Amino acid sequence: MGRKSAVVLVSGGLDSATCLAMAIDGGYDCHALSFDYGQRHIAELKAASRVAKALGATEHRIMTIGLADIGGSALTDDAIAIPGNAQTGIPVTYVPARNTVFLSVALAWAEVLDADSIFIGVNAVDYSGYPDCRPEYIDAFQTMADLATKKGVEGRSIRIVTPLIQLGKAEIIRAGTRLGVDYAQTVSCYQPDRDGKACGVCDSCRLRKAGFEASDIVDPTRYIRGTSDLF
Amino acid sequence: MGRKSAVVLVSGGLDSATCLAMAIDGGYDCHALSFDYGQRHIAELKAASRVAKALGATEHRIMTIGLADIGGSALTDDAIAIPGNAQTGIPVTYVPARNTVFLSVALAWAEVLDADSIFIGVNAVDYSGYPDCRPEYIDAFQTMADLATKKGVEGRSIRIVTPLIQLGKAEIIRAGTRLGVDYAQTVSCYQPDRDGKACGVCDSCRLRKAGFEASDIVDPTRYIRGTSDLF
Repeated sequence: MGRKSAVVLVSGGLDSATCLAMAIDGGYDCHALSFDYGQRHIAELKAASRVAKALGATEHRIMTIGLADIGGSALTDDAIAIPGNAQTGIPVTYVPARNTVFLSVALAWAEVLDADSIFIGVNAVDYSGYPDCRPEYIDAFQTMADLATKKGVEGRSIRIVTPLIQLGKAEIIRAGTRLGVDYAQTVSCYQPDRDGKACGVCDSCRLRKAGFEASDIVDPTRYIRGTSDLF
Repeated sequence: MGRKSAVVLVSGGLDSATCLAMAIDGGYDCHALSFDYGQRHIAELKAASRVAKALGATEHRIMTIGLADIGGSALTDDAIAIPGNAQTGIPVTYVPARNTVFLSVALAWAEVLDADSIFIGVNAVDYSGYPDCRPEYIDAFQTMADLATKKGVEGRSIRIVTPLIQLGKAEIIRAGTRLGVDYAQTVSCYQPDRDGKACGVCDSCRLRKAGFEASDIVDPTRYIRGTSDLF
């Protein structure tokens, strides 16, 4: 019997890097998958490649998909400003149906690879209020996936694995640090500069910074000079 | 109150053309969506554009997504031959998770457009045995979609509409003909020539040809000379 294998969604951020480290630690051959979906912060794709290589993924693919063409999010549409303050409700950085699109493509690849699982680093604790990060959403995707695929119909379910879903940001950082994740390689910021330095003020930077503070682990994030003082 | 609007998945084939005609007949502003996913039969995309224009879609977009890069189907992989005889089980022309990927992108666009519905011409009667054409799959996708999206969370479900799902091929052809669909514009064949002429022997051609015969409507399909004699 061969090794277990998984498709792992890797964005270049802190959560998905930790998720990949956990999948590798769990004995999976990991096929890392990232998307060029017209996001403003292309620095994250460079980070995804660094992370996949450093942690030992079997391969890393970047698939292009034109989500920016349909607009609707501050993360893909230059006409929508990225807010600097905590918001209530579903924020403008929400990319419509993003995790659904990403998981669907991961499902297609997992079926071709005959992989056992798909790992996704969604988190329902210290998160930005996106509907597609909640456990009930993941459960519904699993049910749909089992009906959608040849593997599912044959009783060999492709499991959607969410090891971070109930962890706080500090717990995620501690777990990843134990597994050797170098968070200096990751980019969480919604509007980093070309060099991958973080703004320090967007929602994603705020969650990350608070997570490092609560974890008592030194924050290796490179901030754009001066902006971190605004936090 | 404005008109109802829908995203309609249009492949260039017989079923989706009929589905689009039904959505327009139902009073929807229709945003037609097709995918360039590396399919062998690019003639279908030309057909999709013809059909969308002829039937009066509000707009037509073709989104590129690299499903061919992950392989696994005779429809995208030249190394897998397209069979000429009826098969049992899930055939090699099945593209892994194709409808899931297409519906997911349609969901994203529907949310951006604030559309009411997504129309997809899946059919569980005269079909090729794909798992993602069955009613139970569509129901599961609906449940997932309601949990995935901002609209769903706000109680304004984006409805997945499948007007063909319980119709036989002959009934589909009769319904479309009543609504003015010109089936000469559509391409169903899995391996048409560059001019869009059909092989007459693949599973999709067989279903289409039998449908026209049962409907007593003249089949306007242009077959590659000679191959229709093989049927």
